[in-house]
Amino acid sequence: MSWLDTTGVEWTADPAALAVARLDRSGVEPDGTPSAVVFPRTAADVQAVLRGASATRTPVVPRGAGTALTGATTAGAGEIVLDLSRMNRILDLRPDDGIAVAEPGVITADLDRAAAAAGLAYAPDPASVEISTIGGNIATNAGGLRCAKYGVTRDAVLGLDVVLADGRLISTGRATLKGVAGYDLTGLFVGSEGTLGVVVSATLRLRPLPAPTATIAATYPSLAAAADASVALTAARIQPVMAELLDAATLAALGLSGAALLIVQVDDDPAPAEAVLKPGAVELRSSTDPAEAATLLAARRQALPAIERLGRPLIEDIAVPRSRMADAIRSIEEIAHRHDVRICTLAHAGDGNLHPIIVTDRDAIAPAAHRAAEDIFALALDLGGTVTGEHGVGTLKRAWLARELGPDSHALQQQLKAVFDPLNILNPGKAL
Amino acid sequence: MSWLDTTGVEWTADPAALAVARLDRSGVEPDGTPSAVVFPRTAADVQAVLRGASATRTPVVPRGAGTALTGATTAGAGEIVLDLSRMNRILDLRPDDGIAVAEPGVITADLDRAAAAAGLAYAPDPASVEISTIGGNIATNAGGLRCAKYGVTRDAVLGLDVVLADGRLISTGRATLKGVAGYDLTGLFVGSEGTLGVVVSATLRLRPLPAPTATIAATYPSLAAAADASVALTAARIQPVMAELLDAATLAALGLSGAALLIVQVDDDPAPAEAVLKPGAVELRSSTDPAEAATLLAARRQALPAIERLGRPLIEDIAVPRSRMADAIRSIEEIAHRHDVRICTLAHAGDGNLHPIIVTDRDAIAPAAHRAAEDIFALALDLGGTVTGEHGVGTLKRAWLARELGPDSHALQQQLKAVFDPLNILNPGKAL
Repeated sequence: MSWLDTTGVEWTADPAALAVARLDRSGVEPDGTPSAVVFPRTAADVQAVLRGASATRTPVVPRGAGTALTGATTAGAGEIVLDLSRMNRILDLRPDDGIAVAEPGVITADLDRAAAAAGLAYAPDPASVEISTIGGNIATNAGGLRCAKYGVTRDAVLGLDVVLADGRLISTGRATLKGVAGYDLTGLFVGSEGTLGVVVSATLRLRPLPAPTATIAATYPSLAAAADASVALTAARIQPVMAELLDAATLAALGLSGAALLIVQVDDDPAPAEAVLKPGAVELRSSTDPAEAATLLAARRQALPAIERLGRPLIEDIAVPRSRMADAIRSIEEIAHRHDVRICTLAHAGDGNLHPIIVTDRDAIAPAAHRAAEDIFALALDLGGTVTGEHGVGTLKRAWLARELGPDSHALQQQLKAVFDPLNILNPGKAL
Repeated sequence: MSWLDTTGVEWTADPAALAVARLDRSGVEPDGTPSAVVFPRTAADVQAVLRGASATRTPVVPRGAGTALTGATTAGAGEIVLDLSRMNRILDLRPDDGIAVAEPGVITADLDRAAAAAGLAYAPDPASVEISTIGGNIATNAGGLRCAKYGVTRDAVLGLDVVLADGRLISTGRATLKGVAGYDLTGLFVGSEGTLGVVVSATLRLRPLPAPTATIAATYPSLAAAADASVALTAARIQPVMAELLDAATLAALGLSGAALLIVQVDDDPAPAEAVLKPGAVELRSSTDPAEAATLLAARRQALPAIERLGRPLIEDIAVPRSRMADAIRSIEEIAHRHDVRICTLAHAGDGNLHPIIVTDRDAIAPAAHRAAEDIFALALDLGGTVTGEHGVGTLKRAWLARELGPDSHALQQQLKAVFDPLNILNPGKAL
């Protein structure tokens, strides 16, 4: 790897570092091991590495915290990993403008805390918020719990500094809250999973978010009743900050009984939401006290750890039109039965985003689990939905992406990739 | 135009129709007159026209209501106008899913009214909402008054059906509220001013929006005091639905005295906003009564008609970081003085989007007006802003777009255009 030395950027080929850098949290096993992990500290470092990678035709896998659930940040033989975790400074925070400028390695929750100190918030809050990075969130257009009301990552990104495959540095978007000068390259980079360029700085929107006023946890006698209740919120013109649905399998993993639990948080008057959620509920608890709210939220927060105690979780991620949520969850139960696998489903009910979690053996993912996953993707498309709501495509869903997009749209996307990355060195084999 | 006859789509070469279709509301005079105006009623019609246009290399200018303020919908010799105003059906409205599907010719306010009948809202509300179309709003990524809180057009567009230059029909995005399957082609079409494809259907997000609770109108002794007050709302974690700033020249046009008027509407507790706005104000009126609110809002609504009585308005559209708004308005006053032109400035203060309106002669736009406009664009970039917040580039700002984007980004955008429209027949000479 002598060309890496000429860049002046710190790098390693230490086997332990390579062993970490080749994997993400998807369970995907890449072929072989990458050649090196590179640790840029500045945009100029990233430019130097990409210039060298272009000159040597070396594939580059950009990586934040490696929390991808799709294989998007796995790296194999012949590839180098561009680890952006040391570019982790908040460069600017301007409360009057409602803007922060952050490097890609900033942990998302750290940015939100810095914003909070100025009375503002960074709205996107994926469940991984304490461990995932802004760069990774941008790469997957991460959503989260409060995004149904306050937007996903794309809605919070105003502009980007991006190093292109050939090492050129461009700025996209702007530092204003509104603008339409030129095609929306910013939006194109968001969700592109490191295949179009490497984000070295992001101008992000901060907003004044009201504090939650109440948390409501309601148990329902059936999944349909819970899904209906969440849809009824919309009919009543109520926009909750969060509406999380847990199915019976998830409740069982938590040691709880019941067919379905809906946890709703609002940041305005809670009475209308309570009135809508009450009628069909077996039990409803509502609290305005933050400590008690945390107790009510505990089932949601502890769901994944509880599922992990049962086996290795394959966390899927589909979205369907909100009215089809109950259909989706019922069909997922049938899929579990058909393939004889355990599937626990968590849903962001406010936006129809479902996370069916297939519980499989710790040592090897059973073929039945993969077959169940395939059926879940097919189900998403059958219901007019998408194979990924907020985790991205990675390597796991590439075939499904083609099916969802159709041939003309897929071909267009490949042409766009070729404009940005004609040598195909940026995260090749991912996303598209 | 014999090839148009072979498409089976209604068209005309009537001089009166051509005279209307060659112009928009920008004051831009295209060279000559287009050959025909075509009136598709279906996506298949649009496909037939674009196939024929590709075969004959005929430039096509897509048009909604022709309300563009930038020259984006002007058409000259050798071009045909694709008038989409007859594709004006709301195809679907699914309140439970929070989604509407609309053809491009639907008047924006009609969609919002249809949503309101289901207890929801279509959030983007450009001032032209009663006359402009969804397609035109998508073409320019239209904003409006409440977008500081509830998002611009891009935030409301989930998916599109688009006819490409060669006549192929593709679907982008999805019918779910969240998704990240593939590159964001939807966002790329939004704001592309008809240069990448022709939108024939849009899947749009509807939201439950709370009704406004109060309207507050405050007069300030100086522009700086009014701008400071609007910035202070953010510092106090208040997110108004609307914050409109009118400068002294606008107030004079309305026959009102005073240095600056700030009109704020909130949809939550008005007391905190009143407390922030009161201290520096000469006079503050606040009302929770809708009829009285309309009176308070009248100054904003009547501003443009009042300015139009003084002469022909050149409506400019820049955005700056919110904290630079007072600087921007002061500099605009200096520009007016320097070029001896009258400029009235309206601002969407919540997002730093300024509309300096240069009042010029009715018959011909004075060279001084153009020079003042150039100085305003330069000012926007000097303050870290953009040359267009929500109206787009059209023909008027093409040189400034190149300057704002820089050569690398501008070249990339031209490559993208070539991917979608290799023959350069879609609204050539606009936007890029």
